[in-house]
Amino acid sequence: MTAPSVLDELVSALRCLPGVGPRSAQRMAWHLLQRDRKGAARLTQALERSLAVLRHCERCNGFSEEEVCARCANPRRDASRLCVVETPADLAMIEQTQSYDGLYYVLMGRLSPLDGIGPRELGLDRLLARASDGEVKEVILATNFTNEGEATAHTVAALLTARGLAVSRLSRGVPVGGELEHTDIGTIAQAMAERRTVS
Amino acid sequence: MTAPSVLDELVSALRCLPGVGPRSAQRMAWHLLQRDRKGAARLTQALERSLAVLRHCERCNGFSEEEVCARCANPRRDASRLCVVETPADLAMIEQTQSYDGLYYVLMGRLSPLDGIGPRELGLDRLLARASDGEVKEVILATNFTNEGEATAHTVAALLTARGLAVSRLSRGVPVGGELEHTDIGTIAQAMAERRTVS
Repeated sequence: MTAPSVLDELVSALRCLPGVGPRSAQRMAWHLLQRDRKGAARLTQALERSLAVLRHCERCNGFSEEEVCARCANPRRDASRLCVVETPADLAMIEQTQSYDGLYYVLMGRLSPLDGIGPRELGLDRLLARASDGEVKEVILATNFTNEGEATAHTVAALLTARGLAVSRLSRGVPVGGELEHTDIGTIAQAMAERRTVS
Repeated sequence: MTAPSVLDELVSALRCLPGVGPRSAQRMAWHLLQRDRKGAARLTQALERSLAVLRHCERCNGFSEEEVCARCANPRRDASRLCVVETPADLAMIEQTQSYDGLYYVLMGRLSPLDGIGPRELGLDRLLARASDGEVKEVILATNFTNEGEATAHTVAALLTARGLAVSRLSRGVPVGGELEHTDIGTIAQAMAERRTVS
């Protein structure tokens, strides 16, 4: 008895997606084939086109259809500040705050020695070159506050300060709307250590 | 400033997948484009091929590359029993138990009046025709034990018994390995009502 190999391959291919296990993959395959064939066709096209068209912006390293993406080419953005993020999703979050009008550099990952991702694999030399263009005055590190994100920020900070650039980091502390009772003690300890003078 | 529309479309298309919200979709797009372009290409091909090749088996209504799938065409399976399931994933679960060697009928859904899925939309007439082939002696209802699955089982049972077919339902009760203390009272009540005589 031969299994329906085309379906098996679809289920198996769906597992390339992060966070998708065997059961989710089966449910997704069923949904696409039975309930949303239009969506499946749309996804096929979007994947094909993305693979063909998208590349990395020469300036921010984010995904772009052009050599230099629209954000980096925008003369209204403040070229003296460069915000370093791990992924395009992080960039999108910061953009949503509308609290920043400088430029970005997307690492497309983080230092992760256990996974074999060191400064070379992460392409930190390209970040250094970008930050040393003469226009950038301040580099804002907005990597995650995970162990790996912190280690990445630490390494990048050391490299950049050695070149005489001003480096800053997003502040840590109690979230807006957060109650101390429901905040983890590590965060409270940080908020205490990094307390701000009230004028 | 124009957004990178190809990427936006990919993120948007990924949201066709069940259970995938805007953030998961962004993470998936990033993963596919940055970390696993091979996987993305594989998924593209698998989707394309599945849409082109897969259809419904004429006998069990499951996905198949042939008119009649290998399982239905297998003469070693017991054609006198027909197990009715909601989805191919449910079928796969039952196959994994290796406790059943009859045939299947896949509803590809369940009755859901609120979503406009009645007996006609679910194609219950095809199930009736299949179960009335003269070979089937017993129909085993293995729809889920959710409200909708139970309603589906109830309706199907009424239709089949009216045609003189023997109809059974998977038993309800305390899960294997389950402790009463951690079992919900509805299940315990069912297990009490449907208790079995110990010989």
